[in-house]
Amino acid sequence: MVTETGLNLEKGNALWERAKSIIPGGNGLISKRPDRHVPDLWPPYFAKSKGCKLWDLDGNEFFDFSYMGLGSSLLGYCDDFVDEAVRKAVSDGVSSTLNAPEEVLLAEKLLALHPFAGGVKFARSGGEAMAIAVRIARAFSGKETVAFSGYHGWSDWYLAANLSDDDNLNGHLMPGLQPSGVPKSLFGTAIPFVYNDVEAFKQVVERNTDIGVIVIEGARNILPSNEFLNEIEKISSERNIVVIWDEITSGWRITDGGVCKYLGREPDIVVYGKGLGNGYAISAILGKKEIMREADQSFVSSTFWTERIGFSAALATIEKFISEKCWEKLIARGEVIGRAFVEMAQRHQIDLSVSEFKPLINFSLNYEDANAKILTLFAQEMLKRGFLAGSSVYLSLAHNENLIEKYLVAAEDCFQIISKVLSSGNIDDFLETSVRTTGFKRLT
Amino acid sequence: MVTETGLNLEKGNALWERAKSIIPGGNGLISKRPDRHVPDLWPPYFAKSKGCKLWDLDGNEFFDFSYMGLGSSLLGYCDDFVDEAVRKAVSDGVSSTLNAPEEVLLAEKLLALHPFAGGVKFARSGGEAMAIAVRIARAFSGKETVAFSGYHGWSDWYLAANLSDDDNLNGHLMPGLQPSGVPKSLFGTAIPFVYNDVEAFKQVVERNTDIGVIVIEGARNILPSNEFLNEIEKISSERNIVVIWDEITSGWRITDGGVCKYLGREPDIVVYGKGLGNGYAISAILGKKEIMREADQSFVSSTFWTERIGFSAALATIEKFISEKCWEKLIARGEVIGRAFVEMAQRHQIDLSVSEFKPLINFSLNYEDANAKILTLFAQEMLKRGFLAGSSVYLSLAHNENLIEKYLVAAEDCFQIISKVLSSGNIDDFLETSVRTTGFKRLT
Repeated sequence: MVTETGLNLEKGNALWERAKSIIPGGNGLISKRPDRHVPDLWPPYFAKSKGCKLWDLDGNEFFDFSYMGLGSSLLGYCDDFVDEAVRKAVSDGVSSTLNAPEEVLLAEKLLALHPFAGGVKFARSGGEAMAIAVRIARAFSGKETVAFSGYHGWSDWYLAANLSDDDNLNGHLMPGLQPSGVPKSLFGTAIPFVYNDVEAFKQVVERNTDIGVIVIEGARNILPSNEFLNEIEKISSERNIVVIWDEITSGWRITDGGVCKYLGREPDIVVYGKGLGNGYAISAILGKKEIMREADQSFVSSTFWTERIGFSAALATIEKFISEKCWEKLIARGEVIGRAFVEMAQRHQIDLSVSEFKPLINFSLNYEDANAKILTLFAQEMLKRGFLAGSSVYLSLAHNENLIEKYLVAAEDCFQIISKVLSSGNIDDFLETSVRTTGFKRLT
Repeated sequence: MVTETGLNLEKGNALWERAKSIIPGGNGLISKRPDRHVPDLWPPYFAKSKGCKLWDLDGNEFFDFSYMGLGSSLLGYCDDFVDEAVRKAVSDGVSSTLNAPEEVLLAEKLLALHPFAGGVKFARSGGEAMAIAVRIARAFSGKETVAFSGYHGWSDWYLAANLSDDDNLNGHLMPGLQPSGVPKSLFGTAIPFVYNDVEAFKQVVERNTDIGVIVIEGARNILPSNEFLNEIEKISSERNIVVIWDEITSGWRITDGGVCKYLGREPDIVVYGKGLGNGYAISAILGKKEIMREADQSFVSSTFWTERIGFSAALATIEKFISEKCWEKLIARGEVIGRAFVEMAQRHQIDLSVSEFKPLINFSLNYEDANAKILTLFAQEMLKRGFLAGSSVYLSLAHNENLIEKYLVAAEDCFQIISKVLSSGNIDDFLETSVRTTGFKRLT
């Protein structure tokens, strides 16, 4: 059963149907749902990964020039150096009644890279790491209102922003995000502001005198401006507000640490996840010593936060990341791809903008309601050419020059198709499936 | 540098000192802090584990007749069958932009073992799994007050119980547990009741008409009584309350599933963790189909919930657990040890009670304020004999007859010492260290 893209997805799609009937949403991560890429035509499952190559359940092979495990693989999939450390952890035992010494070694390594910080806690998922950070920050400031911009996970503290107004999170995550099951008593405890918009930020803190915590992303498509960061630092210092940088996505791409380090800033708390362990589950909360001490005043404790694999994987990942000066390569490769996006867009009269944050290069289309259709078409056509692709490329060490060249040849083809479709005006005729889901939408 | 127990802990204790200076509390799990066992004399770290044997950083060897990774190792440490599945997951790739098929296979396996359930979500830590369960339950019932008994992790929904009164959680977790950093607006949203106390439970639900969720442990030292469960089922059915069984600790010990299955009960939601993956991080939320669908109405999504190791480890663990009828062995071994506790106590005139829940056999001393001192002495003396031990033995497949016999010989020695000490009345003279920490206490 070959689909319109020339790919047989029989086994993968059959398993996805089984999944949807018993796992609400089909899986544990919305961004891994095929309907968010190319409905019915995007391979739901992988059998094997290596470098930036993926094999699906039906024998198809792809180069991953899209999310690379949602940004969790900086060195490429199945990196030998990291995996060797993990295999040693498996042989030595991942869990016991006693502690894994690698927890301390990882804490020391992270602190050595972040001289402003004096304390570290570890978790395993990004969302729970952010919940720990917010707990610590609220405890230190003694105030519970959180002003934030950007996406910070599934926890109550964050989704509380949508309690007041269903549209509150629209610019931050996904339109239609529901706070079902989030206590209504948290109404007013999470207030969004627009990233890099100094005036918007000032208005939020003026209107809400009880803000104890400010949460920002290390970068979105753009880096934070000096003016924006100066204002945050000024107000947080005046009003005893704890500033948390969520660098779960932005960290370990532009330097050996987060964007905060790249810009020479000292957050009160910085949170890492995703890339930190090259695909293995590990997240870290680092902060100033006096603030992190609050973690021992509250109750923050969980069995699996002490298993060995996460620590071992992160130690090896950081070691290789630094020895290879990985960030220089990710930036350089992102610049190449970003320039190519601009040039191809010019050649084919496509109206797009390219992100400032190069190691996670992204193009944004400027066609309003048609954007989702065009991106679905782009991903559909790239699939036919053997690439998982979308508007973002999470660069890794595995995306070498040769592969980037191949990717750009395929992308040029697809830009040309888009250009033709845009000028002919009948995009629906070229789509071999329905349009990708962009907002948060209940899967039925 | 040999300690009073005859053990050289130089490397381990030096690393623990480094840990305490940079990781608030010293580690990620309170129960793995040495001061909760035998301060300064309990080995802080393990180099290697296998079966129920542990090697520390200083070359000491121990048999673990205590927590077995806080209940996370049902088959014994480094089980070859599970580890082989994990090594395959490492070779195939743990993370990618696409999904791991093992997520669906594990969901199907769990549902086949729990016919009442129609939906599954996975997380990686126990605390976050409980937070997901409570989110789903609140969403379904439309009411946010949670009545609970027992211990359920570090999340806001649970620690909120301490906002009203610092003593509220005393009978449930640890005296002195601080809700620092938990929003005060959650006051009144979590109300404790005493496990198995039907009248106490009825009073709580009568006084609080807005309860939407009831959370109980599958077992504590005792199993839930029929009367208690009948009352919970009656009230929850009358008032559209969602009942969650937290079987993170009790699950996979007394049958191939939780205590709920052993007792023939059908919870609305049951949560597993710890033992589910034999030490590898994986937790699962199973529930009735119409309730679990709420997980797709809210936003419950996290990158590492989709990594492959957790699923692969759990699939292998369940397979071996069932093929070996592991629970029968855990129960039988717990019965042997429990009977021996009673007999030794009688021989040495020690006043103790033994738990009803056999696969996690436990003795409780009846000496009030002296309990902590006596348990510290017991653990101290068992350490000298090569055993990690306390008042609880989390049985595993690795605790074979021969090892149990050795353990009981050592325990008999220690019961004899305790008996002498109790009759002489000068327990402090026999303690070679300070008394273990029992309540939640800030480490300085």
